[in-house]
Amino acid sequence: MSKEITSRSQDYAQWYNDLVLKGGLADYSAVKGCMVIKPYGFALWENMRDVLDAKFKETGHQNAYFPLFIPKSFLSKEAAHVEGFAKECAVVTHYRLKNDPDGGGVIVDPDAKLTEELIVRPTSETIIWNTYKDWIQSYRDLPLLINQWANVVRWEMRTRLFLRTAEFLWQEGHTAHATAEEAIAETRQMLDVYADFAENYMAVPVIKGVKSPSERFAGAVDTYCIEALMQDGKALQAGTSHFLGQNFAKAFDVQFSNKENKLEYVWATSWGVSTRLVGALVMAHSDDEGLILPPRIAPLQVVIVPIYKGNDQKALIDEKVQTIVKELKAAGIRVKYDDSDNNRPGFKFAEYELKGVPVRLAIGARDLENNVAEVARRDTKTKSSVSLDGIAQHILNLLGEIQQGMFDKAKAYREEHITPANTWDEFEKLLDEKGGFISAHWDGTAETEAAIKERTKATIRCIPLDNPQEAGSCILTGKPSRERVLFARAY
Amino acid sequence: MSKEITSRSQDYAQWYNDLVLKGGLADYSAVKGCMVIKPYGFALWENMRDVLDAKFKETGHQNAYFPLFIPKSFLSKEAAHVEGFAKECAVVTHYRLKNDPDGGGVIVDPDAKLTEELIVRPTSETIIWNTYKDWIQSYRDLPLLINQWANVVRWEMRTRLFLRTAEFLWQEGHTAHATAEEAIAETRQMLDVYADFAENYMAVPVIKGVKSPSERFAGAVDTYCIEALMQDGKALQAGTSHFLGQNFAKAFDVQFSNKENKLEYVWATSWGVSTRLVGALVMAHSDDEGLILPPRIAPLQVVIVPIYKGNDQKALIDEKVQTIVKELKAAGIRVKYDDSDNNRPGFKFAEYELKGVPVRLAIGARDLENNVAEVARRDTKTKSSVSLDGIAQHILNLLGEIQQGMFDKAKAYREEHITPANTWDEFEKLLDEKGGFISAHWDGTAETEAAIKERTKATIRCIPLDNPQEAGSCILTGKPSRERVLFARAY
Repeated sequence: MSKEITSRSQDYAQWYNDLVLKGGLADYSAVKGCMVIKPYGFALWENMRDVLDAKFKETGHQNAYFPLFIPKSFLSKEAAHVEGFAKECAVVTHYRLKNDPDGGGVIVDPDAKLTEELIVRPTSETIIWNTYKDWIQSYRDLPLLINQWANVVRWEMRTRLFLRTAEFLWQEGHTAHATAEEAIAETRQMLDVYADFAENYMAVPVIKGVKSPSERFAGAVDTYCIEALMQDGKALQAGTSHFLGQNFAKAFDVQFSNKENKLEYVWATSWGVSTRLVGALVMAHSDDEGLILPPRIAPLQVVIVPIYKGNDQKALIDEKVQTIVKELKAAGIRVKYDDSDNNRPGFKFAEYELKGVPVRLAIGARDLENNVAEVARRDTKTKSSVSLDGIAQHILNLLGEIQQGMFDKAKAYREEHITPANTWDEFEKLLDEKGGFISAHWDGTAETEAAIKERTKATIRCIPLDNPQEAGSCILTGKPSRERVLFARAY
Repeated sequence: MSKEITSRSQDYAQWYNDLVLKGGLADYSAVKGCMVIKPYGFALWENMRDVLDAKFKETGHQNAYFPLFIPKSFLSKEAAHVEGFAKECAVVTHYRLKNDPDGGGVIVDPDAKLTEELIVRPTSETIIWNTYKDWIQSYRDLPLLINQWANVVRWEMRTRLFLRTAEFLWQEGHTAHATAEEAIAETRQMLDVYADFAENYMAVPVIKGVKSPSERFAGAVDTYCIEALMQDGKALQAGTSHFLGQNFAKAFDVQFSNKENKLEYVWATSWGVSTRLVGALVMAHSDDEGLILPPRIAPLQVVIVPIYKGNDQKALIDEKVQTIVKELKAAGIRVKYDDSDNNRPGFKFAEYELKGVPVRLAIGARDLENNVAEVARRDTKTKSSVSLDGIAQHILNLLGEIQQGMFDKAKAYREEHITPANTWDEFEKLLDEKGGFISAHWDGTAETEAAIKERTKATIRCIPLDNPQEAGSCILTGKPSRERVLFARAY
């Protein structure tokens, strides 16, 4: 495995690609904009998915599965929705290939044209609400709390591994409620689930907020989000939770009879996170030597590397390591003993550094005599000699410390990078020289928001939920503003 | 919930549909041939998936994820493969919709035509082997043992819920090996994994065999399969494992340097099971009252229904049931207490019967006094009064008995329905009057196989792996045959 990784200071974008490709997370594919998620990357995603799935089930949701395809006409039923998605849809027009009569393989069979084209789901509100119409009649059918793990397709012209791919994996929750209050409470609850997951599992601090109208999901009344900060000072939207009001219920005529036996439209939410989170994880923590993965979701938490001369030494080390591996596994630790003789220890060290394994144990013949191992932390690169007695407990504590340490470090960086700007000059200067979130006044209009984006590429990431109501004047127009919002350049 | 279920004797196909729809497993969708998997059906699939996934990982496989789309030209690279799949491919030709200038919604944007059409994967050999070309260089990269959980699309004209749908969920293993022997061993190993799963989890006995050349997977050298028998005497292919030889390696030029540093083509396997298994499960065990699900994969193993008059009685029962639920959960049993007051106990009994919950506990005021519960088995419809002391252990044992009983019953039926036929008349008569597998001689030619299918709709399900080599003469042509094969009409 080659360790030639571009440094962050040299080329941040290339550094990221190097980590994803050389760290074994993903690969480019033969299909433009689509990626292959490699086993190590998929194991990471599985760990993330399993934690989230358990949280969804704890909060009363059930999984289901809806069709990949959506009749084209469904998209038009909700006006804002079609605006948002029509331009990035993969369209299925035919259902058969046939031999090319001119030779040279297969061609699309013109006789197999669909009467109505199908789009590949970019998100599933329309097909799901069309189904909910059959499932919801009475208030007794509510709330309906459903989640789906699925692949979706949004045709993107400029793609980046994990961060923006034409096909991606995600979960999409779609819930139906009897009242607006309940639906809003659900929207907020799922935002909290996402924030909890980002902070306590991914070790990525996030700001919970609400989007400005221009940045809302197509068809939503309100879009809540969690926003994270990457090491290059750019923001990344890590998850969204939408209060959809009655928009989709009206578009698909989903009504229920309430306790008074009167018909009402149903209230809706939807919420999702995707494989984009893997990209956020990489960018938030890693360094120029490779990935740094938080223990709670790392595919591998501990790797043990033997250091020996000759088979006699190796046999002794092997024997001891068997016991250690058993102890660690019994403690629930994901551990691998790499005793392969293909590569020297230095090569293995570099490889597991690249792969971001949180803890490395190295054991040599002298360590064995002293009943110790060299324990190296990936995140801080610190090493210490640790007694093999009680090693499992030591590692468990260490994994906890690493998890917390990674979060604290990312949080300190994030806190340093929320900066108020009070003038346009300050705003531009901060964006160019420091990056991060800039807390500034805005006059509340879409025009000003668009003008700021046009001039600086910065967007309103969110209006934080705990925002102080401090009046001021817009950095661009000078018009009155009743609160600051957070701007940033973003992924 | 309506219990109007068509009986098996009246209309077997309608009985099946009633169970799937009214049992809450799946629903029709707005997209032709695609279904919605409802939460109860999806929970069943999740349980099946989790067991299989653990077995794949135990046997050294890792999960990964490859693109949904495949460039059209890839399909043509393996001659047999394109023959098998071209006619049932959904084809993506455009990547954008736009507003219809004549009004009335959106149309496909003719300016957004793809330079090469993409097919939606009907199976992933081609895109995966195109990727393996980059991943495999040396014998050290082998074996490569990868599995993917994914949705695939095969455009079918006549679809049936779970059994045959245009889109279905499945897993597809794709492995690469240095030798034919290793690849064949892998093919057989995965067949064993499937058989073990079908028999010990689904309680569905299966025959392991190899397909005749006409029934092979498109592109395979040999297709192994597990064949199950449904209650109407029709067979159902429940899983396949293919030895692909070097066909895909040659089509995609995947070579490795062996230990002698010489280039060789890689040997391949692929193997898969799908949501079709849910259909097999329903058809193998259920009765005219509803589903009968085997405990090891049933979403719910035990339901507890209180029988009471008035709130005082209910409060007493509630209190006791809390303890029981805790005990059962501690024993790892999936249990639900249905104390909803919407419906009467009789309605609930019928509902859980329909849903196939293996064990029902009913507890009334007098039961409480006697410290007992009425325990009803779904599969045998037997009831008994059981002491609440040690109830968890009792239920655990009972779930084990049910699991075994369901398998034994299905196996006895299957054994009764493997019948030898020695003449054409016997063969036709058995097919029409008894069904099941018919063990008969066949001359080994594709022509005869096709003629038999044409006349009777029966196909060769498999040549069992443990087939005795008993010479005879073909039931249709009278030509010599060296072994009997199993014929059946099939799903």
